[in-house]
Amino acid sequence: MSAHDVTALTDTERIGTGQIDAGQADPARNDTSMAVAQRIMARCDELGTHSAMEGGIERVYLSPEHAEVDALAVGWMSEAGLTTWQDASGSRIGRLEGVRPGLPALILGSHLDTVPDAGRYDGPLGVLLAIEVARRIGASGRKLPFALETYAFHEEEGVRFGATLLCSRALAGTWTDDLWELRDADEISVRQAFETFGLDPQKVGDAARSSQDSGPRGVVGYLEAHIEQGVLLEDADRPLGVVTSIAGARRFEITITGEARHAGGTPYSRRKDALVGASEAVVAIERIGKEREVIATVGQIRVEPGGVNVVPGKAVFSLDLRAEFDQKRDDAWVLIQAALEEICTRRRLVLGIKQNHQARSVSCAPRLMDAVRTGIQQATGLAEEPMRIWSRAGHDAMAVAEMCDIAMMFVRCHDGISHAPDESVLVEDVAVALDAYEAAVWALAEDYRS
Amino acid sequence: MSAHDVTALTDTERIGTGQIDAGQADPARNDTSMAVAQRIMARCDELGTHSAMEGGIERVYLSPEHAEVDALAVGWMSEAGLTTWQDASGSRIGRLEGVRPGLPALILGSHLDTVPDAGRYDGPLGVLLAIEVARRIGASGRKLPFALETYAFHEEEGVRFGATLLCSRALAGTWTDDLWELRDADEISVRQAFETFGLDPQKVGDAARSSQDSGPRGVVGYLEAHIEQGVLLEDADRPLGVVTSIAGARRFEITITGEARHAGGTPYSRRKDALVGASEAVVAIERIGKEREVIATVGQIRVEPGGVNVVPGKAVFSLDLRAEFDQKRDDAWVLIQAALEEICTRRRLVLGIKQNHQARSVSCAPRLMDAVRTGIQQATGLAEEPMRIWSRAGHDAMAVAEMCDIAMMFVRCHDGISHAPDESVLVEDVAVALDAYEAAVWALAEDYRS
Repeated sequence: MSAHDVTALTDTERIGTGQIDAGQADPARNDTSMAVAQRIMARCDELGTHSAMEGGIERVYLSPEHAEVDALAVGWMSEAGLTTWQDASGSRIGRLEGVRPGLPALILGSHLDTVPDAGRYDGPLGVLLAIEVARRIGASGRKLPFALETYAFHEEEGVRFGATLLCSRALAGTWTDDLWELRDADEISVRQAFETFGLDPQKVGDAARSSQDSGPRGVVGYLEAHIEQGVLLEDADRPLGVVTSIAGARRFEITITGEARHAGGTPYSRRKDALVGASEAVVAIERIGKEREVIATVGQIRVEPGGVNVVPGKAVFSLDLRAEFDQKRDDAWVLIQAALEEICTRRRLVLGIKQNHQARSVSCAPRLMDAVRTGIQQATGLAEEPMRIWSRAGHDAMAVAEMCDIAMMFVRCHDGISHAPDESVLVEDVAVALDAYEAAVWALAEDYRS
Repeated sequence: MSAHDVTALTDTERIGTGQIDAGQADPARNDTSMAVAQRIMARCDELGTHSAMEGGIERVYLSPEHAEVDALAVGWMSEAGLTTWQDASGSRIGRLEGVRPGLPALILGSHLDTVPDAGRYDGPLGVLLAIEVARRIGASGRKLPFALETYAFHEEEGVRFGATLLCSRALAGTWTDDLWELRDADEISVRQAFETFGLDPQKVGDAARSSQDSGPRGVVGYLEAHIEQGVLLEDADRPLGVVTSIAGARRFEITITGEARHAGGTPYSRRKDALVGASEAVVAIERIGKEREVIATVGQIRVEPGGVNVVPGKAVFSLDLRAEFDQKRDDAWVLIQAALEEICTRRRLVLGIKQNHQARSVSCAPRLMDAVRTGIQQATGLAEEPMRIWSRAGHDAMAVAEMCDIAMMFVRCHDGISHAPDESVLVEDVAVALDAYEAAVWALAEDYRS
């Protein structure tokens, strides 16, 4: 056990030890983890009060709320003993030096921006856990063989400008020039928003880091803690899980064209009903999704002309397709395409397919996954293999993976609810997540040295 | 053969004889029927120039265009030798007295209002055929045992105020007080529109006629010629058909409620996908419609929340159900309801059903159908039974049936296209329709006398 810097804490808060003694059940340590977890929960609540939305939470990129929560992050990171600065894309960074100054860093990150009418934990939980892990490690007196950095990204959700993962792209060095002219609902461009916020668009390249750099701009890896936004942990009665990969979604707009005709005057033999065709397609998509263990979702549909007594001449629907691996997803798509073609041929309909989006899935690095697994086993005191989950949602880690190895730890949330005000996590789960996250960093340090 | 009143006609027009010599092929008569048919086609074109819509046809109830085409109808009816007046609902009537003045009338009617971006024949063809039939009969020198009246109704389509068959309801005496407060898109009420048009709302009851009255307000029956708005005549290569009944549609709004969830985080086992449920329903509705020989159409569908990556929590769709007989339609609905319930139970969805509209189907009177059949056989010179069709669309005859016996004759149109600019009929079919319509009236006169 070692001392903590508790100067900034209220006297009702008890701070846990920074160091995990693997496999030991230590009630005192659990208590203090609970206290930290309670602080994290309170800070998630506090972040939630910084919102552009009346009666709900909404914080978008380069907004006044971005600046407000950045100021909070400055305070929290500083108080945790970290040196902090804002990078050229608006991320807030806190740094704890390793065994000697200027080493490449292990980054622990997540985001502070939100969707409209958001919950409190999607993003912030990962940022606040990272800060507390860094605080514990800094306070442990033991030095890591790398620097430790905490990142608070913004525009992970892509709400303001329609493009996701902007700050993490800047970190990865994959910011592209076409991003500058994206515009928000008020026709303000990314470039203008940068300038208004006080950032210099010319310098965005400075935010980029590298896994090849052996100096302070170097990165040894990236970890992210995040709520699961799913139900697998809850169904399995586990607080934490190891993420194996982040699914790369493909999104399509599928148009089925038939012939709009008056309902009364057109017998079935003469109909080319686009909606019945689309309905068969939706049912087939679900069947193939289940059979092939991919997630295939039709979330939008509209028909034209849309008269109550008119046979639909056109049906347009979306398809969102995700799987653990791209191959699995793409194989399912081949089957879906064949089913759509069969339906349209049989029904004398015309099929149109437009792919709107395609992201590669990202695999987590085995050595980082091992560290997360070890962390979870140590924190839970359970020798059994932690649950392995592929992430159905996108995360900053996807963008960072372009630059360095990544891994993620999922924290159980209730009923999979996310992107909604009733998003919730258990404080007990946050406490064990804190322990696991810290233990994972130590495990990685162990591995890094060897 | 007898003389016609041709005073009002241009010298390039040749008018056919008013009387049919049953079973005789008379090339001269066919030629003249063609000339009349050409005039009817030209008048349909002329009516089409009176429109509120740029580049298309739209004439709604109590509008300036209503007044314009009413003035045309005054001219055409007068020129055909009819006494004309406007009734208290805005219908234009022309009357030819029978063997003595003041007899109850056989009414030949249809409508002059249109849907937006309409064709030229849905409604006007029936009005113009009626006028030419009355002209021929008046010019024949032979007197009918009843008066003959031609009606040009308005607001059959229900475009302006959302309620259909308004003028024909006034004729039938089924105008109800709740109609007065219906409002158009500009918030103008039916009552206000009456007054602006120069009609007295207090007097709408004066438009009502009766099959029980033996005086000039009495009605002996109602005939209507109309384009089929379907493909059965064309498929059978027949110009004309006898309508057996007019389907009474039932319309439903069906709501399937599941649970909106993020597409990524929700495995199939946890999903309550309203759209997949609705899609199964749409497919089942088509299957039942085909099996039970009813027309079941889902023309509208929407999902909520409608995010590309959100499992739909709610799907709302329309159902329009028509059959030759109400019992057949209602039996199919029982099966559809059972299918919807099975789908929703199996998928843990909640089913909501709201009936928005129900009309009884109307059967055509056998004695009037016999007259139409005889008329078609005489005009076509074919002894075989004319095609019998149940009308999938509503017509003024439905409303009139509340007051007296009705029957209808359908005229072939191309490809079933209606309520669209490319609605079309063959002039040859109009010529034979004219002959058949006139012959039907004479047949009815024969029957009436006996």
